[in-house]
Amino acid sequence: MDSHKKLKSDIARIKTDQITVHGLDLSRDILGKVDLGQMAFLQLKQRLPTPQEAVVFNAILVTLVEHGMSGAAIVARMTYSDAPDALQAAVAAGLCGMVSGALEKTARMLQEALADPKARSSLESVAASLVAAHGSAQRIPGLGLHFHSPTDPRTETLFEIARANGCAGPHVALLQLIEKRAQAACGKPQPINAPGAIAAIASDLELPWQIVRSIGVIGRTVGLVGHILEEMHEPLSREIAMRIAEETSHAPGS
Amino acid sequence: MDSHKKLKSDIARIKTDQITVHGLDLSRDILGKVDLGQMAFLQLKQRLPTPQEAVVFNAILVTLVEHGMSGAAIVARMTYSDAPDALQAAVAAGLCGMVSGALEKTARMLQEALADPKARSSLESVAASLVAAHGSAQRIPGLGLHFHSPTDPRTETLFEIARANGCAGPHVALLQLIEKRAQAACGKPQPINAPGAIAAIASDLELPWQIVRSIGVIGRTVGLVGHILEEMHEPLSREIAMRIAEETSHAPGS
Amino acid sequence: MDSHKKLKSDIARIKTDQITVHGLDLSRDILGKVDLGQMAFLQLKQRLPTPQEAVVFNAILVTLVEHGMSGAAIVARMTYSDAPDALQAAVAAGLCGMVSGALEKTARMLQEALADPKARSSLESVAASLVAAHGSAQRIPGLGLHFHSPTDPRTETLFEIARANGCAGPHVALLQLIEKRAQAACGKPQPINAPGAIAAIASDLELPWQIVRSIGVIGRTVGLVGHILEEMHEPLSREIAMRIAEETSHAPGS
Amino acid sequence: MDSHKKLKSDIARIKTDQITVHGLDLSRDILGKVDLGQMAFLQLKQRLPTPQEAVVFNAILVTLVEHGMSGAAIVARMTYSDAPDALQAAVAAGLCGMVSGALEKTARMLQEALADPKARSSLESVAASLVAAHGSAQRIPGLGLHFHSPTDPRTETLFEIARANGCAGPHVALLQLIEKRAQAACGKPQPINAPGAIAAIASDLELPWQIVRSIGVIGRTVGLVGHILEEMHEPLSREIAMRIAEETSHAPGS
Repeated sequence: MDSHKKLKSDIARIKTDQITVHGLDLSRDILGKVDLGQMAFLQLKQRLPTPQEAVVFNAILVTLVEHGMSGAAIVARMTYSDAPDALQAAVAAGLCGMVSGALEKTARMLQEALADPKARSSLESVAASLVAAHGSAQRIPGLGLHFHSPTDPRTETLFEIARANGCAGPHVALLQLIEKRAQAACGKPQPINAPGAIAAIASDLELPWQIVRSIGVIGRTVGLVGHILEEMHEPLSREIAMRIAEETSHAPGS
Repeated sequence: MDSHKKLKSDIARIKTDQITVHGLDLSRDILGKVDLGQMAFLQLKQRLPTPQEAVVFNAILVTLVEHGMSGAAIVARMTYSDAPDALQAAVAAGLCGMVSGALEKTARMLQEALADPKARSSLESVAASLVAAHGSAQRIPGLGLHFHSPTDPRTETLFEIARANGCAGPHVALLQLIEKRAQAACGKPQPINAPGAIAAIASDLELPWQIVRSIGVIGRTVGLVGHILEEMHEPLSREIAMRIAEETSHAPGS
Repeated sequence: MDSHKKLKSDIARIKTDQITVHGLDLSRDILGKVDLGQMAFLQLKQRLPTPQEAVVFNAILVTLVEHGMSGAAIVARMTYSDAPDALQAAVAAGLCGMVSGALEKTARMLQEALADPKARSSLESVAASLVAAHGSAQRIPGLGLHFHSPTDPRTETLFEIARANGCAGPHVALLQLIEKRAQAACGKPQPINAPGAIAAIASDLELPWQIVRSIGVIGRTVGLVGHILEEMHEPLSREIAMRIAEETSHAPGS
Repeated sequence: MDSHKKLKSDIARIKTDQITVHGLDLSRDILGKVDLGQMAFLQLKQRLPTPQEAVVFNAILVTLVEHGMSGAAIVARMTYSDAPDALQAAVAAGLCGMVSGALEKTARMLQEALADPKARSSLESVAASLVAAHGSAQRIPGLGLHFHSPTDPRTETLFEIARANGCAGPHVALLQLIEKRAQAACGKPQPINAPGAIAAIASDLELPWQIVRSIGVIGRTVGLVGHILEEMHEPLSREIAMRIAEETSHAPGS
């Protein structure tokens, strides 16, 4: 194996007696001092957050942990039920369906629109162009509710937390302008959903849009282990599988 | 589909205008107030942690986030490199190899040994029995170092954090006694490794051993997204794949 | 990167103008001449099967392709429904729950019992010991039916195919003796199930038990893509998810 | 759980004494008579193939089984090495990186171009439009070689098999015209690669482009179990992981 290009990673240094992560000594600087949300920030931003950023980043991570018996929760529970020896594979299965979705698409839309610094001085016109470009308000990522009504109960709280901690910037402002324009364009409310709000805040925290989906991946992982734990004690999977098998695969009366 | 048994889940209630998780209103009680480690505690214990428990639980979650270019990091990076549209699948792939390992085995050993409350009054004899039962010190889960030396730099810090916050109980005490006995039995140090320490502390937090692996799953997820982000900007996967392909699959000179 | 140990693989050689697999030229010797089951045999046995072995091996691969709306099918369909851009991740999710199960456990039991060549001359006594060792007939891998009755409709056909093609050897014989002994021991039929029959035949084909689960993995992959295709045209996942969400997560009347 | 919409699947019927798949009795009509490639055809086309189709479909399934130590093989082997108890998760991990790629993109391009039956009478002009539309020959899916030279050794063999069995139709013809046009446009050969050839043949077998990726998923699954088996006996993963860890994570001299 000839060395063609040096392999290099700047994340961690592992010595026999010391582990450093982005320059911080794990035992001395991190353990007992840094919570899991701050640690995720460190992984994604290569520095620890300020106290304000820590509150905001933890809030957006926590938001997507739990949304009841989602498809992902069912997938993880059924996989765990079939293979209880492989808990990690049940979580992995539950993650597999995490599409790019509103989180990534909203972040991309906002970041690409504001990539040119001049755009930041004319948010109104950027919002107008974006709404026009999408043709229909239903197609604008980050807007629209599938279940919640009249607003997503998480959205306003997240924006308040971002504002109170000095982390609401042009991306949040732009998404809110888009919401207004979209409502004007189609004549009815087009509320910002929680993934949209998270994407806007993550963008103001300067996370590149390509990694914003990981906020959902991390939150969902935390949620799924709770569902797997409940499945251990209150199993649902066999009942669900039996009902579906009966309804789909069996001859009448069998 | 006849209803044979009611499907029921106690984790969340999703209404159009409210989400509650284990009885707490997500927007009012959780967002902005609860960090991601506390949220994970809520999912696994059905209640929020005390401030002391929050410090300890965050510490054990954070410990396993990063250990350099582990096998899991390589797997996630190579998968991302092949399928950059499916970031979630790259994390899932990186989780698939998270075997039960020291984390689960140590928690099981300690919890089964202390399941009988009487055992708690004679930790010394329980430790002696366990060391004897395993035949060789090398086979005792939670002990032994593969890379670190002379001790695992994370272990003592974790125990200090647990003690300082009142979360070190009989499971920690038992593992430390086992460490001593094992050293005596084989004549050389058998240091507690980080997964062992985490398992003991998680057991003192009364997490059932069957779910203790999820501490590693959560931490690893946070770590992997950092590696995927680095892979976006400093790709290693193609170089690694090319070197391996050259060394294994190709005729000399081809 | 110092080379500590040469990396080497004997499976394939990839040259710019030729691909060889286990010594066969892919274009000249394999394509158009070797079916997928024979190719799987080549991967697992490092040689092509005889025509008789090809029939038998294809039969055991085909058996587990389809069993209606299994848990795995539901998992794959729900994952595909959430992330239609990542078909491969939907299949991966559906594989994650494929526990060691009857396939691997039966193969292991039979192969370990017959590891000593002398055991082959006294199959009756080996069978008697195995039944005794398992305590209860219900615990013997490869025996017992969960759904089918009075026998598994696949078992006898598989054994006939193996016999007709000269591939039924001591492992098949032993499992059939175990079936008889188990029935005698507990006073009611303990029929061999399809995974048990497959495991016995695979063992007579001299596949190591550690890889026998792959027969299920391959068959399941073929089955899952059929379910994903149906999900594209006749989606079930949203209906299933909606029903479960309604039954578990919502307040009455909401 | 109120029934809102009947769940229904037309793939299989599972009775206690009979399993039928797409109307065929598994034991009577399939086992011993249908090879794994034909079974995959049945799952994807809802009917058994003709003998000619069986040869062709097996050929395209077999083609992608093996390509040496690919990224997927490395991922599966490393995952298996970490979690040997979860062989299915190792295969799942290896599948996760199977991007839409040439297989799906080529099938989509060809099928969308020929969706209008009139297009079939003027393949030359369709080919010309497609080459023009892609701007650069490098961007046309199904063309171009990354490693092989001067042609992909699998392509011509696959086309011959398709022709000899009456399965080469307008999609194959169109891709070959595209190849010629692309070469004319850029002045150097733009050979059809194996995934491109498979996509064209699968399209002539009337598989919808949305499911064409599954040909790669099935083939890769068969390939990965061979690599996992080799990893059991000739482990590479630890050596690879150690080399990478040394090169990336450690301080000089540590």
